[in-house]
Amino acid sequence: MADNHSLEVLVQALRRLPGVGVKSAQRMAFHLLQHDRQGAQQLARALDHAVTTVKHCALCHTFTEDEVCATCRDPRRDHGQLCVVETPADQAAMERTGAYKGLYFVLMGKLSPLDDVGPRDIGLQKLFDRVAGTVPEEPAVRELILATNFTAEGETTAHLIAQALKGSGVQVTRLARGVPVGSELEYVDLGTIAHALVDRR
Amino acid sequence: MADNHSLEVLVQALRRLPGVGVKSAQRMAFHLLQHDRQGAQQLARALDHAVTTVKHCALCHTFTEDEVCATCRDPRRDHGQLCVVETPADQAAMERTGAYKGLYFVLMGKLSPLDDVGPRDIGLQKLFDRVAGTVPEEPAVRELILATNFTAEGETTAHLIAQALKGSGVQVTRLARGVPVGSELEYVDLGTIAHALVDRR
Repeated sequence: MADNHSLEVLVQALRRLPGVGVKSAQRMAFHLLQHDRQGAQQLARALDHAVTTVKHCALCHTFTEDEVCATCRDPRRDHGQLCVVETPADQAAMERTGAYKGLYFVLMGKLSPLDDVGPRDIGLQKLFDRVAGTVPEEPAVRELILATNFTAEGETTAHLIAQALKGSGVQVTRLARGVPVGSELEYVDLGTIAHALVDRR
Repeated sequence: MADNHSLEVLVQALRRLPGVGVKSAQRMAFHLLQHDRQGAQQLARALDHAVTTVKHCALCHTFTEDEVCATCRDPRRDHGQLCVVETPADQAAMERTGAYKGLYFVLMGKLSPLDDVGPRDIGLQKLFDRVAGTVPEEPAVRELILATNFTAEGETTAHLIAQALKGSGVQVTRLARGVPVGSELEYVDLGTIAHALVDRR
């Protein structure tokens, strides 16, 4: 493919997608050029458009095209409750439960020293400002629900937030750890059972 | 994400890539928008550029930006030999061996009735025209090496080409089937051993 510079450039560009190696990138490039040139153009337009229009919500830091996202603008939601999640995908999972009617704060990441992600690389300062009440038109935050993932990084992030907000007067809670719905004890890992035992009610 | 139309459009566009489902597409979109907006713009440009510049080689049907690709233009290659492969990736694999000095013909697909891919959807007619000598400036094809994959679809494609060229005076050969280099008989499948036995030399 020595004379095929733009195909080579396309393969390299596709490799920047997470989880895509050389073989997958080649397969994608061949597929688009051979079977779906319209899809390729559509993807190019969608990328351009998203890059120029999508920004972060001034209140909850999630992706939005507006200054403040639709969730944060919703007057029927409890603006005194803030659920802290790592990504918009986690937020979407919480929303699908239909069990939560407060607002969110999306960190857009998690503390991960191994990947060189420190407190300044995720939306922590914005969260602390929000809790401190520097957003005048919003009511004070009453409760902060830490819903970061139950992984080492997620737990660390939750721990740091809880520590930082100690004595701020805001109630900080964490999603309950326990046995998943529909599972049999025999197949649940020991750490989960131990947590479920300690937090029994 | 009700107010996030362009993110939604981007996720849908990414799903057109082969092997990318909803979750992967979301992960890709979040990654690009959060960590690599430059990469997103680069990908958009690469897609646009490839779609407008990459076309099929007039001789071998592979992807190229020129009328005739560099391989087909190379005067040091044997223009009387034509190796028929399914995709540019297969061609690249053949090239890496360094064992072949003829030209190629890239079908850009394989016969696959289940996927609704018939003889007209791949470059078969162009191959037959080429073998029939309708390309005046090229020497006649002496030998056609069928190097389609050794799958059901690849074998069918090879069979159809061999049948169509019967009596055309062109020698049609197939890559040898046999035991892969470095493998132990105990772990080689029975079909391969049977073929290797029949084709012993």
